[in-house]
Amino acid sequence: MPQDGLSVKKEENFSEWYNQVLDKAEVTDMRYGVKGFVVIRPWGAMALEKMYKLYEAALQKRGHKPSFFPIVIPEENFKKEASHIENFSPQVFWLEQLQGEGKLALRPTSETAMYQMYSLWIRSHRDLPLKIYQRANVYRLETKATRPLIRAREFYWLEAHAAFATKAEAEEQVLEDIKTTEEVMHQKFGVPFLPMKRPQWDKFGGAEYTIGSDVMMPDGKLIQQPSTHLLGQHFSKVFNVKFKDEKGKEEYVWQTCYGPALSRILASVISMHGDNNGLVMPFCIAPAQIVIVPIFTKENKTKLVKECEKIKEKLEKENLSVELDDREEKRPGEKYYEWELKGVPFRLEIGEKELKQKKLTLFVRDTREKTNISLAKVTQLAKLGEEYDKRLLAKADKFMKGKIVDCFDKADIKQALEDKKIARVNFCSTEKEGISCAEKIEKDFGAEVRGTLGSKSEKPTGGCAICGKSAKVVVYLGKSY
Amino acid sequence: MPQDGLSVKKEENFSEWYNQVLDKAEVTDMRYGVKGFVVIRPWGAMALEKMYKLYEAALQKRGHKPSFFPIVIPEENFKKEASHIENFSPQVFWLEQLQGEGKLALRPTSETAMYQMYSLWIRSHRDLPLKIYQRANVYRLETKATRPLIRAREFYWLEAHAAFATKAEAEEQVLEDIKTTEEVMHQKFGVPFLPMKRPQWDKFGGAEYTIGSDVMMPDGKLIQQPSTHLLGQHFSKVFNVKFKDEKGKEEYVWQTCYGPALSRILASVISMHGDNNGLVMPFCIAPAQIVIVPIFTKENKTKLVKECEKIKEKLEKENLSVELDDREEKRPGEKYYEWELKGVPFRLEIGEKELKQKKLTLFVRDTREKTNISLAKVTQLAKLGEEYDKRLLAKADKFMKGKIVDCFDKADIKQALEDKKIARVNFCSTEKEGISCAEKIEKDFGAEVRGTLGSKSEKPTGGCAICGKSAKVVVYLGKSY
Repeated sequence: MPQDGLSVKKEENFSEWYNQVLDKAEVTDMRYGVKGFVVIRPWGAMALEKMYKLYEAALQKRGHKPSFFPIVIPEENFKKEASHIENFSPQVFWLEQLQGEGKLALRPTSETAMYQMYSLWIRSHRDLPLKIYQRANVYRLETKATRPLIRAREFYWLEAHAAFATKAEAEEQVLEDIKTTEEVMHQKFGVPFLPMKRPQWDKFGGAEYTIGSDVMMPDGKLIQQPSTHLLGQHFSKVFNVKFKDEKGKEEYVWQTCYGPALSRILASVISMHGDNNGLVMPFCIAPAQIVIVPIFTKENKTKLVKECEKIKEKLEKENLSVELDDREEKRPGEKYYEWELKGVPFRLEIGEKELKQKKLTLFVRDTREKTNISLAKVTQLAKLGEEYDKRLLAKADKFMKGKIVDCFDKADIKQALEDKKIARVNFCSTEKEGISCAEKIEKDFGAEVRGTLGSKSEKPTGGCAICGKSAKVVVYLGKSY
Repeated sequence: MPQDGLSVKKEENFSEWYNQVLDKAEVTDMRYGVKGFVVIRPWGAMALEKMYKLYEAALQKRGHKPSFFPIVIPEENFKKEASHIENFSPQVFWLEQLQGEGKLALRPTSETAMYQMYSLWIRSHRDLPLKIYQRANVYRLETKATRPLIRAREFYWLEAHAAFATKAEAEEQVLEDIKTTEEVMHQKFGVPFLPMKRPQWDKFGGAEYTIGSDVMMPDGKLIQQPSTHLLGQHFSKVFNVKFKDEKGKEEYVWQTCYGPALSRILASVISMHGDNNGLVMPFCIAPAQIVIVPIFTKENKTKLVKECEKIKEKLEKENLSVELDDREEKRPGEKYYEWELKGVPFRLEIGEKELKQKKLTLFVRDTREKTNISLAKVTQLAKLGEEYDKRLLAKADKFMKGKIVDCFDKADIKQALEDKKIARVNFCSTEKEGISCAEKIEKDFGAEVRGTLGSKSEKPTGGCAICGKSAKVVVYLGKSY
């Protein structure tokens, strides 16, 4: 258990707060000794498992079926799609080649592992749509400074790959993916995002277009969360994924892929909700949703703990995750402190008086308020948990609201970024011809053109805020991870 | 969906039967193109997921907590324990070394990844026992012929690593691990096993002793399923995993590890229960437990399917996994055939007559019998599923019973092995001095000394069946994968 609390404030030094909270709440351990690889400790692993469960349920509900593909990708597969190679080659871990065998990459993403199989599985329009996902870790050779869960070489992720008979269906899938992000990451985990259709120069290698989900971190920097890609027929043509339509004519399939990195989403969950007392875990993914702390003396310990065990069982029957902290070597106050640091939503304090009156003391992590709850109604904590998550969501939405500032010139942009906000500006183009303006933004402000709104189209009302030429799009600028 | 049935009989050509059933029931796809790596298709992945869920629940119930460790192991860690290196070095996939960074192995197992962290986490007797497991794939450079799920280079597995203050507690853990295998693999998945304490020359690299679970396959060969190892203090001494006992004295911890490979267990599940019509999946891990096949005409399809959807919903409310097969391009008979091949425990056939009489036709996969079930009592299928699993278990136990034959000389042994049985013999020793007799057995019969019974001790009653010298142990000999 953690020995001490946080020595910095989140609002004063977010970066150090983040490292401390991961460490002291025992989410990860950064001492593994290999750049970009961290150990995920039980507290982090249990949260991740719950996140996987909710995310996979959402994918399955929409017709994606689980599969598992090998971690290794033969070099010749990997190199089939030209812009995919260009994008990913520098990021690939290669295995030492075995005598008499081909060269193998550790998957940085699985298009080139999966689509050769799609070409075997898809024959007819009746085989479509094919919607398959896998839970798998992917590996990317990050050379810049790494940060636990945020910028790593090992990602705990999901990838959903779909194939369709028509482009319209594929585009529909891209929108569905954004809905999945909305349903899970925003509505359940309480992390709001901006769906950003990336500029052409920033799309996924092998895609027609990419829509990324940008999440604002407390330090004002954006982090890319799940992105979805319209792959079009780029991969189906090189992997020969064809189907016979109803008239018997052969066509290439239209494809999409969607990749939530759950370890990185966990970073946003922690950053969004945590406070100066530590983690604040959403109820729906908290490793322990409720901790019971019996306040005992030597004389009444056995009896009291027994009663607490009964309460624990009662709660567990409602599918709640419960810890009972009956350690003798820690005083109740120390325990309170630890479980707050670990972000447990509800704490029940139970002494002899409480038991007699059948009224327990309930501490609520987000509001840090103490109230009472009658012993008979203790299973209402499930319901209170839903309300708790709604509060976290509302607070996160409030944080995000007002972060987007309309800017009309460079001075506006400079101010917005200094205020840790996102600048919304008229911009010449997110096609190739806009690159020079984007480079200017990067050079002058250390910020990026994150893209145009992916969920609806916005019309520009003036000239490009950088070059003054006619603006084709409204883009969002921000600093990023 | 599969196009055709099995062209061989399980009892006549098990090896071909196995390949066909994996392929035609769409469990795996062997065409990935890299030796030892297969694709696990949705039907296999859904079964694996259910197996993970049951196995992890059993581990968690016994106090193991989930964690995730990096897939890469620094060379210097990997090489710390001498016999571990000797055992695993030839089996390691290495990554191409990066400039300025150390050499990294893909984990073949995670002792050397985890125990450096244990040395940081364990300080006091209060930190013990430490029981951590991870769900992770491991990689072993198999050079012999590989077989899907059976002998592969990628294992879907779990590994539980525990540390204790005393040797007695560690030995207790080894027995608990065997109980976990019994509870999950045998009682739930219906796969009986022999717990075999391996001869010294066949133990895990770095262990004091190893108890493997030997499962008999239909071809009379044994396959090693979960093994548990008493690591003693071999690793704690080289990784410096120490604790202060209650008197403040520093001691090295005692360790155990336990490794179920779920992909390989799936191979045994399929081999044990399948028949000449295809898979027979245990109810508790069947990807679909029930398939509903509406028998419709063009006229009544809409109405009938709607009724079937209601039944499906009703069943799903009971947490049952249900498929509704309303495809128009297949006749009911073809559908029956396919779902039998895929091993779905229960099939409900529903036509207009059945609906009117509120009595559905129920086909049961293992017995292949058709009965009726009233529409009102359809949720009793959960209960029937438990009985179904008990029947599979009883049948598997019956298969295993009588497989062990007491043998007193070479002729007996030869006969037993020809009969695809396990020879139980008096044997000189499973310590070093027994190696020459073991080699003789391998040379003369192509069989192995699998070990002594791990669950209880058996006394020999005569001389060694090979050399005739005094026998210290009773061992089990068998052919193996």
